[in-house]
Amino acid sequence: MAKYKEIVRKMIQNIESSEMNQGDKLPSIETLMKQFDAGKNTILKALAELEKQAYIYQVHGSGNFVRKHKRKGYINITEVNGLRSSLRGFELDSKMLDLKVIKPTPEVMANLNVDEDEDIYYVKRLRLIEGRKFSVEESYYLKSVVPYLNKDIVEASIFAYLIDDLKIEPGFTDHFLRVSQLNKENADLLNLEPGDPTVLLESIFFLKNGQPFDYSKVIYHHEESQFFVQGHSYIGL
Amino acid sequence: MAKYKEIVRKMIQNIESSEMNQGDKLPSIETLMKQFDAGKNTILKALAELEKQAYIYQVHGSGNFVRKHKRKGYINITEVNGLRSSLRGFELDSKMLDLKVIKPTPEVMANLNVDEDEDIYYVKRLRLIEGRKFSVEESYYLKSVVPYLNKDIVEASIFAYLIDDLKIEPGFTDHFLRVSQLNKENADLLNLEPGDPTVLLESIFFLKNGQPFDYSKVIYHHEESQFFVQGHSYIGL
Repeated sequence: MAKYKEIVRKMIQNIESSEMNQGDKLPSIETLMKQFDAGKNTILKALAELEKQAYIYQVHGSGNFVRKHKRKGYINITEVNGLRSSLRGFELDSKMLDLKVIKPTPEVMANLNVDEDEDIYYVKRLRLIEGRKFSVEESYYLKSVVPYLNKDIVEASIFAYLIDDLKIEPGFTDHFLRVSQLNKENADLLNLEPGDPTVLLESIFFLKNGQPFDYSKVIYHHEESQFFVQGHSYIGL
Repeated sequence: MAKYKEIVRKMIQNIESSEMNQGDKLPSIETLMKQFDAGKNTILKALAELEKQAYIYQVHGSGNFVRKHKRKGYINITEVNGLRSSLRGFELDSKMLDLKVIKPTPEVMANLNVDEDEDIYYVKRLRLIEGRKFSVEESYYLKSVVPYLNKDIVEASIFAYLIDDLKIEPGFTDHFLRVSQLNKENADLLNLEPGDPTVLLESIFFLKNGQPFDYSKVIYHHEESQFFVQGHSYIGL
């Protein structure tokens, strides 16, 4: 792992632990250079990444300060590290409801930018948090990128499998979120009533080279659907 | 305006017009240097900002590519440029429902990090899109930062007033989004029924120096509440 990534990871751990609070000033660049035994450019690269991921903010002429994620249990959809990272500290489980190779619907074709002949892995999961029914997730993976999936993988962490085993490099994600109403099937799965309100979160995951490879549609239990979004820094244009 | 910001602004215009599509490759750095009559560092700074604001993605070793905002009518809550920027091309109106100076409630104290003696400008607005009732917004501004507001300002653009007239430099924003149910008052305002589903979006706006100065709570008409969120780039930690 590149040196600056190690530094980013350690600094995130410090910020997420109780050691640092919102608005706390980070040590100077010189101090960080000594602390991490790293050159100035490496420290600057780590700080730029921490600002991009919204863990710190830079105040011109006075230094770097902690930007704390404040509310527990909110899903940070600005992060790209999977649900498990966002809900660290909570017990999460996944129950596989379906897994098969299909041809794409027009909706899937449009979102993954593929034609009707493409092979698609379709996965449907019920997700639980602390034993409570949390969401119903339908995901469509390009089989050309994700050639193999099974029940063990799908009930553990697909995200960890993609990165650790398939060595897939996720790039960025677009999310579309709106209020919807539960149909009978999803209401039954979540122990709710048809017509109950829900959040529908559609996400498109892209590889580093810009190719979309995963389109997912998640229906959330309305009592469990709390989302945290970090805005970009304003630069004034 | 700094040179790199001018370049960022022009490139965003190109990307948002129909001239460029998702995945289109940007001209080389050398070409951009000539096109904008700018040095390499200025171009690199502009490209870094465009990547941070999710208008482009960089592919190591092969260049910079357009990341297009795809769905019209979705509010991009990752942007910090106000609702008007996010819904460009739609006719927006604001009707002032209330405007007064108050002392903060415990909720406002916690979100703005102030004590009970602080003066707060409370603004309540009904917002309309293309003449349709869209959202009910309650905002709490620190009077020490926003010393004056009136009906004209509140029914035009508070955001433009803060930046253009008060020269306030917004820094970053935290958003918290969840599903809720309309109470009688807000249901009446939106021509809906009490108990109807709604999205509650709470936002905390910070100055560049990290001080929170505006806490807002917006209730959206469920048929109008569509949000677009751009995830950070994944770097693997």
